[in-house]
Amino acid sequence: MSEKQTEISQLGEFGLIDRLTEGLKAVHEGTAKGVGDDCAILHYNDVDILVTTDMLLENVHFDLTYVPLKHLGYKSAIVNFSDIYAMGGTPKQITVSLGVSSRFTVEYMTELYAGIRIACEEYGVDIVGGDTCASRQGLVISITCIGEAPKGQAVQRSGAHDTDLICVSGDLGAAYMGLQLLEREKVASAGQPDFVPDFAGKEYLVERQLKPEARRDIIKALAENGIRPTSMIDISDGLSSELMHICKESNCGCRIYEDRIPIDYQTAVMAEELNMNLVTAALNGGEDYELLFTVPLTDHDKVEKLEGVKMIGYITKPELGEAMITRDGSEFPLKAQGWNPLAAPQSDKKDKE
Amino acid sequence: MSEKQTEISQLGEFGLIDRLTEGLKAVHEGTAKGVGDDCAILHYNDVDILVTTDMLLENVHFDLTYVPLKHLGYKSAIVNFSDIYAMGGTPKQITVSLGVSSRFTVEYMTELYAGIRIACEEYGVDIVGGDTCASRQGLVISITCIGEAPKGQAVQRSGAHDTDLICVSGDLGAAYMGLQLLEREKVASAGQPDFVPDFAGKEYLVERQLKPEARRDIIKALAENGIRPTSMIDISDGLSSELMHICKESNCGCRIYEDRIPIDYQTAVMAEELNMNLVTAALNGGEDYELLFTVPLTDHDKVEKLEGVKMIGYITKPELGEAMITRDGSEFPLKAQGWNPLAAPQSDKKDKE
Repeated sequence: MSEKQTEISQLGEFGLIDRLTEGLKAVHEGTAKGVGDDCAILHYNDVDILVTTDMLLENVHFDLTYVPLKHLGYKSAIVNFSDIYAMGGTPKQITVSLGVSSRFTVEYMTELYAGIRIACEEYGVDIVGGDTCASRQGLVISITCIGEAPKGQAVQRSGAHDTDLICVSGDLGAAYMGLQLLEREKVASAGQPDFVPDFAGKEYLVERQLKPEARRDIIKALAENGIRPTSMIDISDGLSSELMHICKESNCGCRIYEDRIPIDYQTAVMAEELNMNLVTAALNGGEDYELLFTVPLTDHDKVEKLEGVKMIGYITKPELGEAMITRDGSEFPLKAQGWNPLAAPQSDKKDKE
Repeated sequence: MSEKQTEISQLGEFGLIDRLTEGLKAVHEGTAKGVGDDCAILHYNDVDILVTTDMLLENVHFDLTYVPLKHLGYKSAIVNFSDIYAMGGTPKQITVSLGVSSRFTVEYMTELYAGIRIACEEYGVDIVGGDTCASRQGLVISITCIGEAPKGQAVQRSGAHDTDLICVSGDLGAAYMGLQLLEREKVASAGQPDFVPDFAGKEYLVERQLKPEARRDIIKALAENGIRPTSMIDISDGLSSELMHICKESNCGCRIYEDRIPIDYQTAVMAEELNMNLVTAALNGGEDYELLFTVPLTDHDKVEKLEGVKMIGYITKPELGEAMITRDGSEFPLKAQGWNPLAAPQSDKKDKE
């Protein structure tokens, strides 16, 4: 090609995806929702089928120095389940494709697969196929998950309205702090074969990074309490980035309150220790796999009773933009820093379409 | 891990998959067929959904020295469509996951994606999602295809019976010879910027390697002529390997006739030129994406009238094993050499679960 060449970093991941999928039109009536949500939605007679896919590459998404293979397998499956739950669906089947370099033995691959199998047993999902091939470089994991939602009930990113309440499950920033901790211990252990990493008092952070869970319980609680979110997304790239996806797809703005963002005690201690801004970590730290959703204002009292869910703000008209109201009452515009290795090559994390 | 370690090459790809998926049980009633065919089959009320996935890694499955990105995109999609057709289904949607290293520009990725889009337009398939992330090494392409078959009509590998006729579409070995040719010209061109590769009289071979098609036309012809194969598979790893999959899954043996194996004139010329055994190339050369299927003996006359389909042998009782009857009438046992980079690290091709 002789024409002008554009670095991918100039567009970033989302820009690249927009460029690649520009003007795509579905030919099948059943293709209800294509690119641009946690999952694709395929209409069948009495059910909507959800499809999501996630690729994990060694030394981009995981570092085998400190990530046990079984945990990696577990997490690889969970991140896909999370996307299905984020549409209000139920994950049913996965396919597992693995690119394996010759330095991996059968026993290592069995460990990895054991983690995938445990996640599937835990969440009631069937492994139905895949592809296994040699890789010249590192380990490649590509999982596709198929789920179901009752006809017309899949919750998209595009349904938020002015005055809707913004809710988030669990707490944020812990997975990111877990990663910082693991990286710190990796550096500290360099060249010391007998090194014992010190995770005392920070077990929660390590677990959030290495063995995240998908919030099936929240989806169940919402259904039991008759709450149907107007929009929903899972937090894989950070609260800011996900909130901006909802605002973009729903054509609205938002206000969230700094003092309402749920943060665990260990996350705060770790941020202090590392001299990092805690709110930045909570806003932009990825991989929490919590659910971010909006509900009509009239659901306020119902949501208030939900355990593990916090209302952090509200949806506005689009012209008001997206902002956080800080503790001192000023407005801080949200930015989708997220984890964008295509835009920022030095970063070690990932974005998801 | 301190236990005994086993090299993956000792098991090969299929052995590894058997080990990893040992004892897998489906929890969902809808999961009708999991690992072990071209596609998984998921039962829905009035339709069977087919799912297949394929991973392509740079320098394992393709060499960008001579594979144009647009062709690569096209082929990446086609190999998935082929798996759906091999179940007698219709491909409907794909997800496209890409791992991209920083040496690729937006324009390069657009070329690749253009090839995928052209294949999708050609075959009436919707792109419904994917994942795009940074790769530290080469290009990674992982595509999952979703298709449909009428309820209970998906053709599996397991339905062949004693006396069934073995049929194959198109011709075999050409894609493999195309690869040999491209590799030869690559070597010849080394260090010569003005080198013009010589493909005169061998255009068919290059096209078979770089721009294969999926045999939708054969599926259509079978339906129009009221022929329902008892078993079917697409030839991605070579005739021998695929035939042995059918025999294993159907618990039967087979006899094929050397002189019935369809081979194009250009393939024969190229084998001669390279001093390669032509029949070995046709038996073990992969990537032809032709259909291999069995039909009841009573369909003989119907199949005989089909254009582009050749009967090459018959299914036997399992105790007779799998063999080719050579031109001189002797029996030559079939071996699944296929392309197994996990068993033979020096090979440049791939196997598919």
